[in-house]
Amino acid sequence: MKKTHDILVETKAALPALTASKERKNAALEAIAARLLSEQEDILAANREDVEASRSKYGEVMIDRLTLTPERIAGMAQGVREVAELPDPEGRVLRRVERPNGLVIEKTSVPLGVVAIIYESRPNVTSDAAVLALKSGNAVILRGGREAYRSNAAIVRAIHHGLEDAGLPAALVGFIEDTDHASADELMRAVGYIDLLIPRGGAGLIRRCTENAKVPCIQTGTGICHIFVDATADQDRALDIIENAKASRPSVCNAEEVLLVHQDIAEAFLPRLQKRLTSEREAKGLVPVELRLDERAARIITGTPAAEGDFDREYLDYILAVAVVDDADAAIAHIAVHSTGHSDAILTQDEANAAKFTALVDSAAVYVNASTRFTDGGEFGLGCEMGISTQKLHARGPMGLEELNSYKYIIRGNGQIR
Amino acid sequence: MKKTHDILVETKAALPALTASKERKNAALEAIAARLLSEQEDILAANREDVEASRSKYGEVMIDRLTLTPERIAGMAQGVREVAELPDPEGRVLRRVERPNGLVIEKTSVPLGVVAIIYESRPNVTSDAAVLALKSGNAVILRGGREAYRSNAAIVRAIHHGLEDAGLPAALVGFIEDTDHASADELMRAVGYIDLLIPRGGAGLIRRCTENAKVPCIQTGTGICHIFVDATADQDRALDIIENAKASRPSVCNAEEVLLVHQDIAEAFLPRLQKRLTSEREAKGLVPVELRLDERAARIITGTPAAEGDFDREYLDYILAVAVVDDADAAIAHIAVHSTGHSDAILTQDEANAAKFTALVDSAAVYVNASTRFTDGGEFGLGCEMGISTQKLHARGPMGLEELNSYKYIIRGNGQIR
Repeated sequence: MKKTHDILVETKAALPALTASKERKNAALEAIAARLLSEQEDILAANREDVEASRSKYGEVMIDRLTLTPERIAGMAQGVREVAELPDPEGRVLRRVERPNGLVIEKTSVPLGVVAIIYESRPNVTSDAAVLALKSGNAVILRGGREAYRSNAAIVRAIHHGLEDAGLPAALVGFIEDTDHASADELMRAVGYIDLLIPRGGAGLIRRCTENAKVPCIQTGTGICHIFVDATADQDRALDIIENAKASRPSVCNAEEVLLVHQDIAEAFLPRLQKRLTSEREAKGLVPVELRLDERAARIITGTPAAEGDFDREYLDYILAVAVVDDADAAIAHIAVHSTGHSDAILTQDEANAAKFTALVDSAAVYVNASTRFTDGGEFGLGCEMGISTQKLHARGPMGLEELNSYKYIIRGNGQIR
Repeated sequence: MKKTHDILVETKAALPALTASKERKNAALEAIAARLLSEQEDILAANREDVEASRSKYGEVMIDRLTLTPERIAGMAQGVREVAELPDPEGRVLRRVERPNGLVIEKTSVPLGVVAIIYESRPNVTSDAAVLALKSGNAVILRGGREAYRSNAAIVRAIHHGLEDAGLPAALVGFIEDTDHASADELMRAVGYIDLLIPRGGAGLIRRCTENAKVPCIQTGTGICHIFVDATADQDRALDIIENAKASRPSVCNAEEVLLVHQDIAEAFLPRLQKRLTSEREAKGLVPVELRLDERAARIITGTPAAEGDFDREYLDYILAVAVVDDADAAIAHIAVHSTGHSDAILTQDEANAAKFTALVDSAAVYVNASTRFTDGGEFGLGCEMGISTQKLHARGPMGLEELNSYKYIIRGNGQIR
């Protein structure tokens, strides 16, 4: 097994070759897409081994996330090509000033350098992360989870072949072979080798990164997302949006966990909600949603009484905490205390309340009359994403190409002194 | 003495009042400028006490940095008014997309929240930091050094009066009364109260922040700045630029510490440099610059032989390390190893070398044919600055109003589900 430190050294050393050959970036991405398709059989064989080894350990959802098919590999290759077609984020002049003394100052976007990502289960993250990093001019260090090790290794082989096809060093995409905690910890401390570390996985991983990382780190993921149904909301649409946000894919970070309902409509709306999320879903053979009700909601419909902490949990399951609130201000105040700053929505026809909500809710994505499920790089038009930041520094929300760039000031003069 | 924690709580609680009264920001800044002038006598009296108490402890440069005069206070007030006149950084739509499903997604700049700054000696930082934070929509926590305590407290009183004059809570500008290490450490750990911490001071403070901070922190300051004199440089201008970069104000972070000279011109240029920085300065009654020479330079001129580490020191003094290099590539390679990523310059008439240097030197500010001393918020047209970042995440180089903002995505729909 190759040592993590050696991979860090090699990747850092490979970076100047990319800087010097920017014009080959898209050719490399095309070659990577072609290799993913032409090496599909190797990738599928490796993936079958991963799936076999995991079957006894994990549940169905996890196995589904892990499993690759020819269609999914075609989707990965298609994703690579879509990233290739996006505008180049490097070299954008973000601000230009010509000073009275004649200096021309250009704030210009540049790559961060070496971007590292620690991720879990889904093998498609391997190609998404690699191509987003390369397209934005960065080298990348990939450290996937043990359960997908063979799949990730096979995908990285295809990526390496694609890079070589385009005349770029394979070491631009460093693949950490050690899947123990120790290698993740080593990445967190790799000062001088990693310019940005993105942990993309469970709450434990993210906490470990933000508490221990010595390299710059972006906090991603945890989503306690709220939907507030205002007094003026279109209730039919509200039911559609809530069911979608809660139940279309409960395991993801942009799924709704908490519903807040304006007191003026609670008596009319909550019985409809209960029917929609429980009996109607059961009748369709869908998993019903368990409702955890605060005292005011429990006076109107039946459900599980909310326990201590039920409004501060990322369920990632068919469970929805429900509270009745006095008005938009009360909803905003609740969200200020309980939201993780990921995605929160107001459903309303009242423009003033919409404006207040979008101004005062301090989250990465704030929605008016739409499902929180759209917080996603693809849905935002960024191609794919490196992760979803829930912090406010540097990047917020889905991280695409621009967020993988820094900037520098380039100043041109003709002898100016101060 | 007020407890640091209580100040954090009050400042955080005051923030929504600013968010709700954005339109009063400029009026508050005008009122602060007026108060700085009308309370000038109190500020000067407090400053005299600081200066008296410091006279036995510090050298002349430090005393000069600490001392306020009516002119300097007028300059502070003028600086406040200039910030008021800058464009509002809040609410800029940084990117807008209308998706095929009808969602309108606006990436919109928003304040960070509470910005804290730990700084040393110069009292004008108190008003600069406060007004940059307020103008960009943030509350601010100020923690100055002990030697300027009375001056800072008097300036903050004027700022508080100005805020109250404009109908805003004084607590928007929190002033830490405890100037012990303990209060700085408490700020570094104030998760939930501080959205961004900026240490602006010596290398020790900055190291302590980057190693121990649990809140987001920007690495500022340390500048081992290089100037490379290429074979084609205009040598007369090069002498002017080098003398300016080294000796106009050696104690600041954008001063030059290292000179690299192309081998083809070293024999002609170094004797002129020596004369310019030593005997000519002495003849004018100026402090001569000590030259620390690598082996190749020492074969051409006399000076102190460079010792181990002399090319990795921020002298902040009338000392310049000098090396002869083969060419622009060698200069770039030297800078890659020894620069702190602050400001580096090439002096050349060769466009290809200028392009290569600006592309490959990975520093916040990269200059062609100008002094490194321009790396400064005012000189870059940002009004003043909160600090100069030498990291690549979030902000790089002088931090002005835009760098004190984050962004959020505001998404408007009409019932979209995924």
